[in-house]
Amino acid sequence: MDAEIIAVGSEMLTPERLDTNSLFLTGELNDLGIEVTAKHVIGDDRERLASTVKRALTAVRLVIVSGGLGPTEDDVTRDAVALALDRRQLLNSDILSGIEQRFRSMNRHMPEINRRQAMVIEGAHVLANERGTAPGQWIEEGDRIAILLPGPPHELKHIFERQCIARLARVAPPLAIRTLVFRISGMSESELDQTIAPIYKHYENPATTVLAHNGDMQVHLRARCSSEREAEALLREVGSQIEVALGERIYSRNGDPLEVVVGQKLAERHATIAVAESATGGGLADRISLVPGSSAYFLGGFITYSPRLKMELLGVPEEMIRKCGPVSPDVAEAMANGARRRTGATYAIAITGNAGPTTDGPEAPAGTFYVAIAAPLDVEVTERVWPAPDRARVRAFAAQMALDLLNRKLSRA
Amino acid sequence: MDAEIIAVGSEMLTPERLDTNSLFLTGELNDLGIEVTAKHVIGDDRERLASTVKRALTAVRLVIVSGGLGPTEDDVTRDAVALALDRRQLLNSDILSGIEQRFRSMNRHMPEINRRQAMVIEGAHVLANERGTAPGQWIEEGDRIAILLPGPPHELKHIFERQCIARLARVAPPLAIRTLVFRISGMSESELDQTIAPIYKHYENPATTVLAHNGDMQVHLRARCSSEREAEALLREVGSQIEVALGERIYSRNGDPLEVVVGQKLAERHATIAVAESATGGGLADRISLVPGSSAYFLGGFITYSPRLKMELLGVPEEMIRKCGPVSPDVAEAMANGARRRTGATYAIAITGNAGPTTDGPEAPAGTFYVAIAAPLDVEVTERVWPAPDRARVRAFAAQMALDLLNRKLSRA
Repeated sequence: MDAEIIAVGSEMLTPERLDTNSLFLTGELNDLGIEVTAKHVIGDDRERLASTVKRALTAVRLVIVSGGLGPTEDDVTRDAVALALDRRQLLNSDILSGIEQRFRSMNRHMPEINRRQAMVIEGAHVLANERGTAPGQWIEEGDRIAILLPGPPHELKHIFERQCIARLARVAPPLAIRTLVFRISGMSESELDQTIAPIYKHYENPATTVLAHNGDMQVHLRARCSSEREAEALLREVGSQIEVALGERIYSRNGDPLEVVVGQKLAERHATIAVAESATGGGLADRISLVPGSSAYFLGGFITYSPRLKMELLGVPEEMIRKCGPVSPDVAEAMANGARRRTGATYAIAITGNAGPTTDGPEAPAGTFYVAIAAPLDVEVTERVWPAPDRARVRAFAAQMALDLLNRKLSRA
Repeated sequence: MDAEIIAVGSEMLTPERLDTNSLFLTGELNDLGIEVTAKHVIGDDRERLASTVKRALTAVRLVIVSGGLGPTEDDVTRDAVALALDRRQLLNSDILSGIEQRFRSMNRHMPEINRRQAMVIEGAHVLANERGTAPGQWIEEGDRIAILLPGPPHELKHIFERQCIARLARVAPPLAIRTLVFRISGMSESELDQTIAPIYKHYENPATTVLAHNGDMQVHLRARCSSEREAEALLREVGSQIEVALGERIYSRNGDPLEVVVGQKLAERHATIAVAESATGGGLADRISLVPGSSAYFLGGFITYSPRLKMELLGVPEEMIRKCGPVSPDVAEAMANGARRRTGATYAIAITGNAGPTTDGPEAPAGTFYVAIAAPLDVEVTERVWPAPDRARVRAFAAQMALDLLNRKLSRA
């Protein structure tokens, strides 16, 4: 079974915006054995969208349209699909009262224009939206299916997962597409590719993709077979060779990001963690605490952006900052020790660095970072210099490096 | 003049890859006064690509096809476009010797399959590729133009900039596209739209787009006129009405995000800021400190994720946490006061809340947040409840809300 995905919105035809919903949808469709054969972005233009939907429904059995279900004049998806299928639209009073109720719960009155979101194409099955006002719609025409989903990613995902997957599983003929994901840290993208290319280049199936984002890497193996068993055997065959080649560089085999892996290790050991961040300004703590349940091991910590706060909150000696500079291994170590002592955490991670774009002094060229991990028995400090740093990227790289170092330390502990 | 962009490659139909060349191309085309009306991603399928190109050339005057010009069987773009235009392909001996030369310079022998890259569609103008083996092609059919460009971004950009822009400027009718951006905070997307729709709906030109992301909103006005002056006059006409309607809800007219605007106000007033974050776990500090030069006003602060650290680091009374709960206006206020006192900052922002997904107790249902701003003369506490919270989103909303409240406070100060 093949599918096309159509994203609707003129903002995605500007130089600033991409359609990213299609990545999620493609992953979910592949898991159902459905291949995506084309993707389109169409502006807020009713006739153009209608003709795109019409043509797509002749080419493939499944067409997913995302976006354009809002309340404004610009939101043309309902009208365009009704036009493409030559069907009427009817006001659904259940949806209308749901939208009214949603506004009431926020102590607000529903604006009149939101009535448009209660219009349903004749014969459509309504896909309720618990996270927003615009419901989705599932429309069948012969053996063809059109699914309309709201554009906000969290609404689209929630509706697709809860209301579309099971329905699609009933209609999609069996093709097993299975994916194996390794997550890797602590090496560069080209080192990674050089290590594993001699393995994966012998295989067209599974297809191998290497992804890199701010120091975090993923290797995706994607097998397409007529049975699950066959696909899984293929993944095992290639995956086991990659595991041998990468060894402990692999930190996750189930897609979990580094902050989740680290959190699990801390929780298992009944250990706690605190942070002391300078150059990353809260970015490391943000990642650690984004994990649900992180309060079991994450105590909190300090953002000591100014040198004075490094002294007052963490007890870094003034003399040390003056002599070594705030971006130095000594200060990183003193920050980690101070954070550990003042929070009572089992481990404390400190990051000090110069994220750029300018260089403050000879001791700390932009791109220089020190990460210190204070543990019950020792403190380790690691230096890393990123040439030509980009402020946002180098901060993200430094937080990733800190988590990677902690993960290795916990693996050894 | 309108254009469509077609990206070719099955790897962009997986869950991992997006076509990003179209962002660069859209920016360049807009600067030439050319609008992009649709974008497509097509797999390595000759017939499907041929029919997409054929249809696009009936809809718009310019079609740009990127990718699929490599040497392998999978690279179908030359064949597909020749099929769509019903033209032959001819071996170009200059290109062939260039490719051979390129391989020789790397001390390698040209594989036989690379001959395919020297095939040129009859009547095409060759766009030489100094950075790779596959040349581009510029093909005219009546008043229609098809441009074929290689997929690697640095090759595509180089060819487009050096060989396409000047040619397109000669054929594109003069059209000036100018954009005005307002950034808005502190209201919902539908409130915003209701406020400004009565203005913008009278104008087809400029086109108005409302974008919302985690509580941050943008209104883009995009005028298309035959002269710059006319476009700018139109933007002033509509923009001034929108300014009146939104008043102080507009925090930026030049695209600057809220953390930059707040930072400028703090710097102007020679004021400093500190944070005390619980539920946002560093996300607010991360945004504030991402701004280059933020060390001039951002001192740092505290991440007090555990109740114990709220007491020990910020001096929140244990009695208060027990009686009111950690997610309460009293605790938010005490956190802000503690952070201000202990850092000596002019202002301190504290955030406490329950980001979900679970509810800890009757006092703090998931989605409840309190933001306190301690200033030299007063402390203000604001409550906000997000129904059905999504952990990552509600944290981002809360940080946005805190910056918005601070911005308003600074505007009044």
